[in-house]
Amino acid sequence: MGIIVFHGSTRKDSNTAYLTYRAVPKSEATHIHLRDYQVHPIVDERHSEQGFKPIDDDHKILIDQLLAHDTVVFSTPIYWYGMAGPLKQFIDRWSQIMRDPDYQHFREEMKKKKVYAIIVGGDSPEIKGLPLIQQFQYICQFFGMTFAGYLIGKASKPGEMKNHEEALAKAAFLLKRE
Amino acid sequence: MGIIVFHGSTRKDSNTAYLTYRAVPKSEATHIHLRDYQVHPIVDERHSEQGFKPIDDDHKILIDQLLAHDTVVFSTPIYWYGMAGPLKQFIDRWSQIMRDPDYQHFREEMKKKKVYAIIVGGDSPEIKGLPLIQQFQYICQFFGMTFAGYLIGKASKPGEMKNHEEALAKAAFLLKRE
Amino acid sequence: MGIIVFHGSTRKDSNTAYLTYRAVPKSEATHIHLRDYQVHPIVDERHSEQGFKPIDDDHKILIDQLLAHDTVVFSTPIYWYGMAGPLKQFIDRWSQIMRDPDYQHFREEMKKKKVYAIIVGGDSPEIKGLPLIQQFQYICQFFGMTFAGYLIGKASKPGEMKNHEEALAKAAFLLKRE
Amino acid sequence: MGIIVFHGSTRKDSNTAYLTYRAVPKSEATHIHLRDYQVHPIVDERHSEQGFKPIDDDHKILIDQLLAHDTVVFSTPIYWYGMAGPLKQFIDRWSQIMRDPDYQHFREEMKKKKVYAIIVGGDSPEIKGLPLIQQFQYICQFFGMTFAGYLIGKASKPGEMKNHEEALAKAAFLLKRE
Repeated sequence: MGIIVFHGSTRKDSNTAYLTYRAVPKSEATHIHLRDYQVHPIVDERHSEQGFKPIDDDHKILIDQLLAHDTVVFSTPIYWYGMAGPLKQFIDRWSQIMRDPDYQHFREEMKKKKVYAIIVGGDSPEIKGLPLIQQFQYICQFFGMTFAGYLIGKASKPGEMKNHEEALAKAAFLLKRE
Repeated sequence: MGIIVFHGSTRKDSNTAYLTYRAVPKSEATHIHLRDYQVHPIVDERHSEQGFKPIDDDHKILIDQLLAHDTVVFSTPIYWYGMAGPLKQFIDRWSQIMRDPDYQHFREEMKKKKVYAIIVGGDSPEIKGLPLIQQFQYICQFFGMTFAGYLIGKASKPGEMKNHEEALAKAAFLLKRE
Repeated sequence: MGIIVFHGSTRKDSNTAYLTYRAVPKSEATHIHLRDYQVHPIVDERHSEQGFKPIDDDHKILIDQLLAHDTVVFSTPIYWYGMAGPLKQFIDRWSQIMRDPDYQHFREEMKKKKVYAIIVGGDSPEIKGLPLIQQFQYICQFFGMTFAGYLIGKASKPGEMKNHEEALAKAAFLLKRE
Repeated sequence: MGIIVFHGSTRKDSNTAYLTYRAVPKSEATHIHLRDYQVHPIVDERHSEQGFKPIDDDHKILIDQLLAHDTVVFSTPIYWYGMAGPLKQFIDRWSQIMRDPDYQHFREEMKKKKVYAIIVGGDSPEIKGLPLIQQFQYICQFFGMTFAGYLIGKASKPGEMKNHEEALAKAAFLLKRE
């Protein structure tokens, strides 16, 4: 079923994208840039009488793409020691999908996925990015997905990733992990 | 200068709000429910030539309130092991404020704040909420703010917090920490 | 089968002990002070031909006590952001017990235990003690034990815990968690 | 002043040692195998009237070696999600050194060190080894040392590390981090 990459960066040609394409070349995966899709933030209506209101945006298009692949890569810059908004917003809405009659198979399908994370930050990401890695781990654990590996890159200024030899060398190994 | 509470919950009368009001009674603080304000998500333009575009929303109103208090409480339900969207969105935009000529004092002022966090989740929050606590800690560390304490509550269904004797007992102590 | 407490403190009448007795009164549990027992450090012989050499110390006495109870409390001062030596040494040797023909039931029995942790430190223990809490969580996860709760106290000088109202108040709730 | 490596493994020719020698070749550093030295466990006498009793073992030999180098590598197998006994015991006794009149310069000297950590485990070390990485980070932070990088290897059976291409590739980069 192949690999899908969800890019959380809000900036074009970001350092995060550069590292991600080195780990998962364009030709080898479906690449989704979340900034090109409209996804509304979740409103918690799990406990309201009528349940979640249907929302007219691109979320289900993205969910269908997610379900059509068996390896999922989440790629995000680190914003304030968490994931970028577009990615979090996409994930937050899973709470709604899980209660959608059209997606009763969602949880069971997710269980079969293999997940990787690629995160890039400027402030000691190898240490201060670890809570974000643990967050991905708990998300995977929730569904019983395999969290197969992660890659942490350090960069701030545009183009800087190109000089980060170590991260680029590691990138080549990411998808080889089981 | 007093206490300000930023509520991240998207639901009215949430368990998170109940616990928060027990820790910080209505009469003792300025309570801001972020869902009542419009804050656009950040678009990373730190490196674009013209810098960040001005955004017409309520963010600066909230920043002015933040700066007018010396104790700051962040209150949020745990969504997918991270903070709720409205709170993250508010914080993400600080990156823009820090580059706004009208807020050159922002970073220096933030340094003086004392910060508390209140988080509530349904899935083992005392363990799986810890990455979120560490995220708050790194945010405080960035500015040199004092992260003076946190409170973790467990609840899923509406009204459930009322029976969580332990969290309520702890709530009474939160602001006494230095 | 009742509660057993393993005290890791090397000092008599420590702050850690004080807090622990408030959470688990003397009369309600078997209290084991590990410093009163001789436990040799593990030598990793998992892969040597003849396996682990038998060791003449008190470790099996402690293991038998452990197995005779269904609720286990680990109590330890925080030394350099980890658990105290006597407790770690006791746990490290479980690797040997798991390969001991007399204890083939060890792993299966451990699965049934409910575990609590009490940790006390002087340097921001509520933040800097969290890796230790996560370590306990992973130990529990290894066996499939329930990690039912933890208590973090702050104290440095002898006797200081007596004034830590908040920790003492929390102590009363520890064993009530499920 | 050069590089010193403290090896915490209790087993000769361990996977941890193999990875460590790939990151820090024999000829480029002073390699200390802690299992070849006698270090007694700490007994907390910080608060006893006469202070710590002098201990007749090899600890000060090791401390003198530590102080004679400016880059320090801690290498340890992961035992129960923490560092191995010989390394922890060596570090625990720093509490005693800091109160030793002969080592009044200890804390000030430590501040100048650059520190790396190499950890190897068999049970999802890239996730479950993270609390140990954070522990090293807090130890560094205590002294104001620079925690310049870490390396996590996965291996259980003897010799297995030789096939862990990714870890070996990363090893080559470890000391290049600043």
